[in-house]
Amino acid sequence: MKMGNEVEWRIKATGDGSLEILVPERFGVERIQHWILGLGLKLLKFPKKAWKLGVNDPRKFIHAIKVAIALTLVSLFYYVKPLYEGVGGNAMWAVMTVVVLFQYTAGETISRTINRICATSIAGLLAIVVQWVASRAGDHVEPIIVGVSLFMLASAATFSRFIPIIKARFDYGAMIFILTYSLISISGYRADELLDMGLQRIFTIVIGASLCIITSITICPVWAGQELHFSIIAKMDKLANSLDGCVAQYFIDQTSYVSDEEYDKKLLGYKCVLSSKEAEDSMANFARWEPAHGQFRFRHPWKQYLKVGASMRSCATCIDALLGCVNLENKDPSDMKEQIGDVSLRLSANCAGVIREIAKTSRNMTRSSCVDILVEEMNNTAQELQEVLKSNNPINNAANNPTKAHGPPQLVLMETFQLLTLASLILEISARVEDIVKDVEQLAELAHLLPATCVKPLNQCQDLEDPCSQN
Amino acid sequence: MKMGNEVEWRIKATGDGSLEILVPERFGVERIQHWILGLGLKLLKFPKKAWKLGVNDPRKFIHAIKVAIALTLVSLFYYVKPLYEGVGGNAMWAVMTVVVLFQYTAGETISRTINRICATSIAGLLAIVVQWVASRAGDHVEPIIVGVSLFMLASAATFSRFIPIIKARFDYGAMIFILTYSLISISGYRADELLDMGLQRIFTIVIGASLCIITSITICPVWAGQELHFSIIAKMDKLANSLDGCVAQYFIDQTSYVSDEEYDKKLLGYKCVLSSKEAEDSMANFARWEPAHGQFRFRHPWKQYLKVGASMRSCATCIDALLGCVNLENKDPSDMKEQIGDVSLRLSANCAGVIREIAKTSRNMTRSSCVDILVEEMNNTAQELQEVLKSNNPINNAANNPTKAHGPPQLVLMETFQLLTLASLILEISARVEDIVKDVEQLAELAHLLPATCVKPLNQCQDLEDPCSQN
Repeated sequence: MKMGNEVEWRIKATGDGSLEILVPERFGVERIQHWILGLGLKLLKFPKKAWKLGVNDPRKFIHAIKVAIALTLVSLFYYVKPLYEGVGGNAMWAVMTVVVLFQYTAGETISRTINRICATSIAGLLAIVVQWVASRAGDHVEPIIVGVSLFMLASAATFSRFIPIIKARFDYGAMIFILTYSLISISGYRADELLDMGLQRIFTIVIGASLCIITSITICPVWAGQELHFSIIAKMDKLANSLDGCVAQYFIDQTSYVSDEEYDKKLLGYKCVLSSKEAEDSMANFARWEPAHGQFRFRHPWKQYLKVGASMRSCATCIDALLGCVNLENKDPSDMKEQIGDVSLRLSANCAGVIREIAKTSRNMTRSSCVDILVEEMNNTAQELQEVLKSNNPINNAANNPTKAHGPPQLVLMETFQLLTLASLILEISARVEDIVKDVEQLAELAHLLPATCVKPLNQCQDLEDPCSQN
Repeated sequence: MKMGNEVEWRIKATGDGSLEILVPERFGVERIQHWILGLGLKLLKFPKKAWKLGVNDPRKFIHAIKVAIALTLVSLFYYVKPLYEGVGGNAMWAVMTVVVLFQYTAGETISRTINRICATSIAGLLAIVVQWVASRAGDHVEPIIVGVSLFMLASAATFSRFIPIIKARFDYGAMIFILTYSLISISGYRADELLDMGLQRIFTIVIGASLCIITSITICPVWAGQELHFSIIAKMDKLANSLDGCVAQYFIDQTSYVSDEEYDKKLLGYKCVLSSKEAEDSMANFARWEPAHGQFRFRHPWKQYLKVGASMRSCATCIDALLGCVNLENKDPSDMKEQIGDVSLRLSANCAGVIREIAKTSRNMTRSSCVDILVEEMNNTAQELQEVLKSNNPINNAANNPTKAHGPPQLVLMETFQLLTLASLILEISARVEDIVKDVEQLAELAHLLPATCVKPLNQCQDLEDPCSQN
């Protein structure tokens, strides 16, 4: 309602206690006011969201405090007179070093530090040599030599950043190389105490970098390697949950006793496996720079994790196709479903069981002793499913006994095709699970893991009843 | 063979003319020598690989030259006396700005530039205000106020970089904020001409940034938006090729008349769709900052491309499952294969045809007028495939006429299951292709594209004969 000049705002309180503004139907000033109010509400919600983010993973808070500590420590160079007199205006470089080097994981910080120190030293030396040569060549030629060398080196270093191996490991170093070379070669044209300045600058960079690395690896360190290891294991559990949920949704009416939201979250967990390639690549890359930590020695086979990740993605794509197939389903119960259902459920539970077993032993940094038995069991069930498919010949049955099934025969036939597709996909998934097992076994071998004592696996039929209550 | 102190190196010439060193079987010095020689050979190959990279996409060479031009131009501030006297030692900041701001795409350069200028200004102002307040509080309290404010702001800004929306758009800005605030507040404790220094620094940063943006968008610009648009279209073509190749591999013996390598490349093209999420996200993010260019206006619906990309990935996961199914296949020809093969081939050709049609019209920035007809045709073929599956009842046929099929009945049955799975997956793919079409149609609507004149589509059966010779 609008009376005179008053504007009425329609604000709706939503279920979770937050407010939502309804868009006015007319255009113009009201629309702008609406936009501003919307922005205001968003800004009000912002701190709450940010706080939640930190509470869910307190290491993010800790990282922020670590950076602040390193920065405050390095700024002591300015506050404390004797320190300041030692390095003078160059203390700026120590501050800058801390800000640009300090990263979330120890591996990334170390990688950037080594890149920065090496690139600064190489570029600095090169710049001084070129400067020396140029200064011998006479006043007119000097800026030309310096300029041409700058042009050539800058374009070469920029281009090198496109080369995959350099992009993955030395991208930051290439940038710092260009930066240092241009700064020093240009200053060299004006300043004469080049070597002295260069050495002082490198000295302050080393101070900043050491401070970064010490803070990074002593106060609650976040290791890229450990992150990679546990993120892969967490994704294994998600795969197992999705597989359970997906098959159970088709054969058992699961959705009745868990909340929809929670159920969907479990069911769609496999999606995060699909999109994890880049994150895994960069974590493996940073892990290479880390010293031995926790249960991981130096030169732990990080590359092998990428293979495990790839097998897991291949399995996840199959689960995606399976889910597409399950969602098509119409909910009529039928005899064929029961015939194949039992074995399919057992096979998917076997697959999930195998994944959970390798996840559990990997979590403890051991090598599974009973995964072979579980894989054999899985393969036996797969064989059994193939036998059931052959002997029961569900399409044949359906055609011969249309009265037994609910609904018209055509519907039953369509459902049967779906059922067969589902069964085939589960068979394909079991094959891909075996690939994951092979890669994990190879990882255990490369990392020299010891075998775990084999505990009798849980009765896997329990899994069928409520995959969502697990884990 | 080893004689006395001589070491024999076994070097093998491989097919493509490059050399490969065979690893000696013993450990020790030989192994190290082998490693050094290997590194040497790698370094020799390196320039060749780099050159090839640039020749395949000359824009990479051009980018390297653009950066060198910008850097050489900005260093004129040092070489030319009047310019140098204007800004003095602060010219360093202009150089640094060019090195860290200049990125491959115009959008990324603009995004970083805006981030840098805003963050520098805000942090600079804030630092000056805090400094002013602190200086009023007395000599003993001053460093405490400055130190505490630095600690608080640095941790807040570092934490903000974890928040998704800030990470996506203002990550660089947050870093520059910390950097500028610490540099200015720390220098402020010593230097007294703070405002003057700050202004001069911002002035040089603006010079560097303008130079970056001008070079970036005038010399052969690479637009993130355009990249996104054409990379999505290229991936559509790859999807269509993979689909064609995959189905044809099962039903037609394709591999005989194209080289294996080329064939695999076409067949596995869909894999690059699976892993493209992060690249698309960042391109869409940078495209938002770009001005109108080519056929794209400002505020082109870049976000919609992410939806198209997601639908394409969903289709690609299904192709992955299909390929898994095709690879299981044993090559015996059978009657059922012929029965279903024709319709399946037509359906997959229809799907590929639909994808190629939207790729073609999108490439021309038009809206397809005949995609509706093609989709209808695809759906009719899908309907037909379902009918064929129902009426022919292949399992039934196989069980009744085992003599007609080659090999024992069991083998035939297994092949039949595979055939049914394949047919179901092609049906699922056709459903997912329709999702892609819907997203592309919505994109065309949001971007106000004009309809293209409808050309009668090619006879799609041509596609079946050799999908690899196309495009």
